[in-house]
Amino acid sequence: MKGPILPSAAELHSLLKRLYPITRSLTGDGVRETLRVVQEVADLEIQEYPSGAQVYDWQIPREWNIRDAHISTLDGQRVVDFRRNGLHVVGYSVPVCEEMAFADLEPHLHTLPNLPDAIPYRTSYYRENWGFCLTQKQLEAMDRNARYHVVIDSTLEDGVLNFGEKLLRGTSGREFFLSTYCCHPWMANDNQSGVVLTAFLNRYLSQKEELHHSYRIVWVPETIGAISYLAHNELAMKNLEGGFVLSCCGGPGPLAYKETFLGDHLIDRAVKLAFRDAGIEPWLRPFAPDGSDERQYSMPAFRIPMCTIAKDKYYDYAYYHTSLDDPDFVTGENLLSTLKMYIDAIEILERNRVFKTTMPYCEPQLGKRGLYPQIGGAHNQFGNVKKCAMSIEAEVDALTWMMFLADGTMDMVDIAERSAQPYSNLCVAAVKLVENGLLEEIQEVNAR
Amino acid sequence: MKGPILPSAAELHSLLKRLYPITRSLTGDGVRETLRVVQEVADLEIQEYPSGAQVYDWQIPREWNIRDAHISTLDGQRVVDFRRNGLHVVGYSVPVCEEMAFADLEPHLHTLPNLPDAIPYRTSYYRENWGFCLTQKQLEAMDRNARYHVVIDSTLEDGVLNFGEKLLRGTSGREFFLSTYCCHPWMANDNQSGVVLTAFLNRYLSQKEELHHSYRIVWVPETIGAISYLAHNELAMKNLEGGFVLSCCGGPGPLAYKETFLGDHLIDRAVKLAFRDAGIEPWLRPFAPDGSDERQYSMPAFRIPMCTIAKDKYYDYAYYHTSLDDPDFVTGENLLSTLKMYIDAIEILERNRVFKTTMPYCEPQLGKRGLYPQIGGAHNQFGNVKKCAMSIEAEVDALTWMMFLADGTMDMVDIAERSAQPYSNLCVAAVKLVENGLLEEIQEVNAR
Amino acid sequence: MKGPILPSAAELHSLLKRLYPITRSLTGDGVRETLRVVQEVADLEIQEYPSGAQVYDWQIPREWNIRDAHISTLDGQRVVDFRRNGLHVVGYSVPVCEEMAFADLEPHLHTLPNLPDAIPYRTSYYRENWGFCLTQKQLEAMDRNARYHVVIDSTLEDGVLNFGEKLLRGTSGREFFLSTYCCHPWMANDNQSGVVLTAFLNRYLSQKEELHHSYRIVWVPETIGAISYLAHNELAMKNLEGGFVLSCCGGPGPLAYKETFLGDHLIDRAVKLAFRDAGIEPWLRPFAPDGSDERQYSMPAFRIPMCTIAKDKYYDYAYYHTSLDDPDFVTGENLLSTLKMYIDAIEILERNRVFKTTMPYCEPQLGKRGLYPQIGGAHNQFGNVKKCAMSIEAEVDALTWMMFLADGTMDMVDIAERSAQPYSNLCVAAVKLVENGLLEEIQEVNAR
Repeated sequence: MKGPILPSAAELHSLLKRLYPITRSLTGDGVRETLRVVQEVADLEIQEYPSGAQVYDWQIPREWNIRDAHISTLDGQRVVDFRRNGLHVVGYSVPVCEEMAFADLEPHLHTLPNLPDAIPYRTSYYRENWGFCLTQKQLEAMDRNARYHVVIDSTLEDGVLNFGEKLLRGTSGREFFLSTYCCHPWMANDNQSGVVLTAFLNRYLSQKEELHHSYRIVWVPETIGAISYLAHNELAMKNLEGGFVLSCCGGPGPLAYKETFLGDHLIDRAVKLAFRDAGIEPWLRPFAPDGSDERQYSMPAFRIPMCTIAKDKYYDYAYYHTSLDDPDFVTGENLLSTLKMYIDAIEILERNRVFKTTMPYCEPQLGKRGLYPQIGGAHNQFGNVKKCAMSIEAEVDALTWMMFLADGTMDMVDIAERSAQPYSNLCVAAVKLVENGLLEEIQEVNAR
Repeated sequence: MKGPILPSAAELHSLLKRLYPITRSLTGDGVRETLRVVQEVADLEIQEYPSGAQVYDWQIPREWNIRDAHISTLDGQRVVDFRRNGLHVVGYSVPVCEEMAFADLEPHLHTLPNLPDAIPYRTSYYRENWGFCLTQKQLEAMDRNARYHVVIDSTLEDGVLNFGEKLLRGTSGREFFLSTYCCHPWMANDNQSGVVLTAFLNRYLSQKEELHHSYRIVWVPETIGAISYLAHNELAMKNLEGGFVLSCCGGPGPLAYKETFLGDHLIDRAVKLAFRDAGIEPWLRPFAPDGSDERQYSMPAFRIPMCTIAKDKYYDYAYYHTSLDDPDFVTGENLLSTLKMYIDAIEILERNRVFKTTMPYCEPQLGKRGLYPQIGGAHNQFGNVKKCAMSIEAEVDALTWMMFLADGTMDMVDIAERSAQPYSNLCVAAVKLVENGLLEEIQEVNAR
Repeated sequence: MKGPILPSAAELHSLLKRLYPITRSLTGDGVRETLRVVQEVADLEIQEYPSGAQVYDWQIPREWNIRDAHISTLDGQRVVDFRRNGLHVVGYSVPVCEEMAFADLEPHLHTLPNLPDAIPYRTSYYRENWGFCLTQKQLEAMDRNARYHVVIDSTLEDGVLNFGEKLLRGTSGREFFLSTYCCHPWMANDNQSGVVLTAFLNRYLSQKEELHHSYRIVWVPETIGAISYLAHNELAMKNLEGGFVLSCCGGPGPLAYKETFLGDHLIDRAVKLAFRDAGIEPWLRPFAPDGSDERQYSMPAFRIPMCTIAKDKYYDYAYYHTSLDDPDFVTGENLLSTLKMYIDAIEILERNRVFKTTMPYCEPQLGKRGLYPQIGGAHNQFGNVKKCAMSIEAEVDALTWMMFLADGTMDMVDIAERSAQPYSNLCVAAVKLVENGLLEEIQEVNAR
């Protein structure tokens, strides 16, 4: 086998389904179990930072674990049962074990009146609180005059915040970043889709015979995990050239592209070329400091340009942060199409080099090198050359543009934009021209 | 009372009506009377330059005053009567007192055949001449075979060119300019509207507890007044950062915006933000060296970027430079809406500062400072936080953008453009963040 | 007679028709005869480089001459006859004199099935080969079971590659380039149209009393001729500021404009102003390294910005590289309209100067210099000034813009773009202002 192989849609969906029903939060057993499952695909290391550590303006919270939770009638019937869906409890709820009137319980109940079958996803990480999330229908079925047993069997104790990390070394001296968040429980698009794609991107890059760039890949709890990682890797993070936040990659919506805060960084240009060459117009989302951890990574001290390729990005779909974001909402085919777009963009970065012509004075005579058809003058240049299929015409276009533009001041991304030729064709042309001694690769410079 | 107050529409229109029927020209009693009326609202100083003074390529003309003028039949009936409308005499007409045939009179008569009820506005400042302006209907009623008494009781004598001036001092070391022209007689939109708005802008700025910038405000006769002022204040004028020429501010047309010659100067950007935040699309007029005194102020030796916010700008309306441009054409409401747009733009300049985060490494934890709702995860971030109205959501957006962008390289105008957040919201956010020690103001630099 | 005169449409077409039926190729008698005919209009010099010379990556081929060629039935009937149309033989065909079966002949036959009445144009310059081009109808009339006499009476011998050259000297120290190709046989638009227009442009420029810029004008065989010329004039070519490749100038299609590889070079801007002022929207073709010799001249070592104004540019018309591209397809009127556009663009370059105001502090008083109407205030500035036609209004606009912009940092092309005033009007204004001591010309700098 030569080179990396893509997973099948089924393989992607299978991993997603295994990760989906794990009860996760910022910290705790669920995160560890999630990362251990990911390790079956990607050789990440599971790391930890201790509770209570100060990370810039934030403090790593205590570790939260939960075993059970329910609202029950006084005769023992579970009206809301955490064991059926992990979203039923507000994340980081403190322990509760009480009998109380509905009126006292009600302020702790969260529903979505407009989506009466959906359980919302809610958290209270930084203020001690507790609560239940339930469907509007469940709420309406409750007896407003009754009393209920309310149990949350959770613990908040000193422990650790876990995350996954993998460093892949390339030769260019340039490092890119892939980050996803592994804290969201019981939702498929947000964000087991990101966890899964990052796992397979890790596998893909690891399987390449040689990496041009280095890649830093992390699975972190959102916000506090990203901030903790920045705080513990400040110099390395300042050296990053750019990267990707993998989030919401598998919904039924169109492929979307959220730009970096620069909008025209090499990362943006690589992604836009990938979309262009795939013939797909992305649903373009300009940068905003919302959404996910790009808002941390791009803060003034770091200013790492981070983008996101998504299918049904956060905020963009009706089931966002609800129990309806489940494995039926996310298909393997959707995951695969997004994965391919990430790989296309990364391969553009991998193959981005600077070439300089050795023949700057005129067009090289391609014909004498077997790179050009021998009968000239035909209307489409190749119409009468029986064996020249379209691909040969395209190849001569690519050769010609390469020889014209490759003067040592433009990299392959520049050339692909300027010439409107497919990136892959230009790479093929570059290889042929190097083989023929007409181009030489020159040292590229870190763009940052 | 705290802070400046806006005039009412009635107050604006009332001043306009008082100023309208004063016979003005470049010089003379009418200008002095006009400036004295303006002094009732604005504490300007009435200044003067002597006739005959050389100002660059120009010479200040003699002072022109006129007491009466008419064309009368030989039996004493006034066919054209200056006492009914000051526009009837060509500005700067030399004295005449003659009986003459219609044929000899005709070359001195100006009408508008396409607007048969309108008296045109005409002048002959720099060539000795005389003439009458009348309606086409008046002309047609005259007897082409008759002789007429023609009287212009005017004087052209050494005197002064008057203008109004007010300097308001701010603390930023940056100075902006407001200029209007006070020479046009008997027309409301062009330009008692500008004279009135400049008066109330002067009052508004004077009433502010503290001015950030300095403002130089002048009421000058058009062209020669502006040139005289430049010649006498050369160094100060070269130090100006930009400004506004107030002209034609009260017609029924849409709000128009004539850009500075740069088109993207801070002045332009402030005005465009004011329009944007007001939800108004301006009728955009690119700069041309026509119209009013921006053509002098922006000449090569000065290059002061000057813009104009107008309602029915010169050239843009049918009644331009005619007697139909009267106080019925200009309403108080129109004047007020233009005044507000000027104030909005000036307030954007006033509040334009550079802030730098004290927390550049990650988002500050807004929650622990009471700046963020405590239950996370809701779809629109605030959907389930009962007391959070839309304004709180907008405030968090503004806080987040401020913390993201305020790295000491962008001012508030930059940030408002980049974030697409309302300027006022960003200012509120900046104040809160400074109060919480998360931002500090740093010294801004004169952009010129 | 003062100044250069334009040819008539008939004069243009007449030269085209004389040149059309000459059998040309890269080298040989046909090129020499073509250049001698051109000499009747343009005083070019006929130059030569020897066969076998190495020019960069290429070698100048042997000289090819052909006297006769035909495919005949065995009873002597010419089925394909070179004497009827020079396109019938593949360019640079080696000599043949054989009797052969149709099956052996067929691989050497070229037709256009989609244009059954057209003979295609084919060449085989750099690989020894031979062939015939014929109409699809001719092919279908041949007997596939018959044997044919096949004769190509050609020679390939050491000789020379000829080209025409003319250097015209100006005073600015800046040199521009005009290049056309003179190798295409028996086609009118591609490219006797270019040969003819270059001849008359040479005549036009030679007839000017004084040239501001220098012009280097060449008629070269395509590709190898351009490369040979570059190789023999390397330093001079690197000093060129930009230029024009004249190709396909006389078809019935709309005027097209192929940009230089920069797209916004002075050359591009001059051409776009010429189109703008003529009120013609060009069919804009972005640069691609295809088509004609711009692909050589713009290679990295030279990077000469070269553009093309065309009517039915190569690739853009159905008859391209066929016998249907004949003198009926190209009219004298079409040639003249393209010639005029070239002249307009070149005249913009000729008159492009940098002026600096001597009166930077305010508008000069045009009135006292007789440059402005004496009655002010009229709606369109000149409505009541009986003798002021539209042209005077336009002239004052041009005067005003010139005085506003001519600060020594902008040339006339900059000013024409910025002001949107017709270039000619601005030139007239500049002359008047210089005469009045209000502007002075300052030394311009080579833009390259």
